[in-house]
Amino acid sequence: MSELIKLSQLIESEIIKINFPSSPVNLYDPLNYFLRIGGKRLRPVLTLLATELGGVKKEDAINCALAIEVFHNFSLIHDDIMDAAPIRRGKVTVHEKWNSNIAILSGDVLLVKAYQLLAKQKSQHIPELLTLFNKTAIEVCEGQQMDMDFETREVVTVDEYIEMIRLKTSVLLGCALEFGFIVSNDSLSNRRKIYDFGVSLGIAFQIQDDLLDLYGDPEKVGKQVGGDVKSNKKTLLYLIAEKNAKGDLKKQLNAIKSEPNPELKVVAVQDIYEKLNVREETANYLAEYYQHALDLLNSIETANDKSTIMEMVNYLFNREH
Amino acid sequence: MSELIKLSQLIESEIIKINFPSSPVNLYDPLNYFLRIGGKRLRPVLTLLATELGGVKKEDAINCALAIEVFHNFSLIHDDIMDAAPIRRGKVTVHEKWNSNIAILSGDVLLVKAYQLLAKQKSQHIPELLTLFNKTAIEVCEGQQMDMDFETREVVTVDEYIEMIRLKTSVLLGCALEFGFIVSNDSLSNRRKIYDFGVSLGIAFQIQDDLLDLYGDPEKVGKQVGGDVKSNKKTLLYLIAEKNAKGDLKKQLNAIKSEPNPELKVVAVQDIYEKLNVREETANYLAEYYQHALDLLNSIETANDKSTIMEMVNYLFNREH
Repeated sequence: MSELIKLSQLIESEIIKINFPSSPVNLYDPLNYFLRIGGKRLRPVLTLLATELGGVKKEDAINCALAIEVFHNFSLIHDDIMDAAPIRRGKVTVHEKWNSNIAILSGDVLLVKAYQLLAKQKSQHIPELLTLFNKTAIEVCEGQQMDMDFETREVVTVDEYIEMIRLKTSVLLGCALEFGFIVSNDSLSNRRKIYDFGVSLGIAFQIQDDLLDLYGDPEKVGKQVGGDVKSNKKTLLYLIAEKNAKGDLKKQLNAIKSEPNPELKVVAVQDIYEKLNVREETANYLAEYYQHALDLLNSIETANDKSTIMEMVNYLFNREH
Repeated sequence: MSELIKLSQLIESEIIKINFPSSPVNLYDPLNYFLRIGGKRLRPVLTLLATELGGVKKEDAINCALAIEVFHNFSLIHDDIMDAAPIRRGKVTVHEKWNSNIAILSGDVLLVKAYQLLAKQKSQHIPELLTLFNKTAIEVCEGQQMDMDFETREVVTVDEYIEMIRLKTSVLLGCALEFGFIVSNDSLSNRRKIYDFGVSLGIAFQIQDDLLDLYGDPEKVGKQVGGDVKSNKKTLLYLIAEKNAKGDLKKQLNAIKSEPNPELKVVAVQDIYEKLNVREETANYLAEYYQHALDLLNSIETANDKSTIMEMVNYLFNREH
């Protein structure tokens, strides 16, 4: 783990060095605040890992790694407005601490800042980095729109849900990894594989997130059990339940949504899900994407060994955090 | 004028060709709508004019010209949310027709789209185009924040106001023009001059806008006289009045803000401004920036002649439109 911690600390120290001007204060104070409230910095660490895997020193990719993290923070600031989220990483969100207008505009600046960091890479790599980054950024927005649309839609299929998490969260992992291979001048075929590895890993991770919400150890996960159930969120678990439910169980699944007692609701949903084989079926999806990710990683011939990136994979999937 | 109209029509036809995917509809419908409600397309025309001035055919700069226009439209969509504006170019704004969340997210996509267009230029020019575009985009956001801050600030100086309009609207004209000189491989010194020409021109144009609001022919200007006065907007006219007013006139200038009859208010403000020499002093600022712009343009040695760009300047300053 120590190599991963070192990489994460490197990113943290570089993030803190990003200095915004002192004025206009209402534009830059929110950014200085938000970039310093922490986060695991997983995505830029993936860029550095891929860069080293490609046989180039990590310092050569530091700016595009930071671009990924800064972009991620931009998307959080804007998503938090849209989701009316009061808290992020245990701290007050930007639109709550200031207001929505300030959160819109400082988010915009942060998106441009990501491009500014990208532009600091070597000229020869900029066109390819830019093209991949643009495609990814648009897909992330598409995923967020789908997520919002799902809230009010009657029927969402499992395939649509997986497409939504692919766009909203997974393509950015693929992009982060491929950035490392662009900087290390890797082949197009390897670039494609590491990208797909990241996307599959991201989907598996998101499915694990859905599972842990209901079946994780609350102490290890660090949040209450069944938060998604309490808010009637259309997670993969729910969509599988809906797909499988017939007759009485279908009625129960619908009725439980309006159960006023949250603890009772979680227990009742767990009971319905057990009858519908939801946990096992969800775990099968997780295993499938996880295995596909590992197969892709194994198929890549790399300049350096894969032990640190495998540490990262193990960290992500033995977490309950 | 015919060459200018041709350029503007070329831009219009290219804008209409920008095709967004059909789904998610809530993300892309607003963009198909907003990009097609018109506008004068002045900024991308400036890019094409500068490209031809630099001796390169305009087609070589079409994508970075479109990037400028698409960025401008992004900033309008987000500004309209912040300003709670119901109407833009005679049509309902995006956040009114859909909602604020949709306007935030489709605005974000449009900003990325601008970068996607930029990335279509020749590889060799992309790093320089990107660097200038990033700097400009951040400044435009800074200008918008200053403009919002001014609304609630007690005292705003003339210098601060000019700095605000420089950032909010003028640097984008400079950027549009310099894009043309980057594509035509012009010298750094010429690039600097055409950029400064654009900025000065933009400031002069914005000052003219303030003047026309109160002193323009409403039929030619196409909007009611004194809109800025009625909404107590801190325009250059108002800030000069505030700077010059002493004693009784200062009291009158303050008191008139709460006059309930809008027509009476406009007449009274015109009377106060006349006593304070506001119109003449504002016109002097306009003349100064206009002349500085022309001096800069004249100082540039260009491959082609400047007649079309001078037509554009004349069009902008003999407008009352």
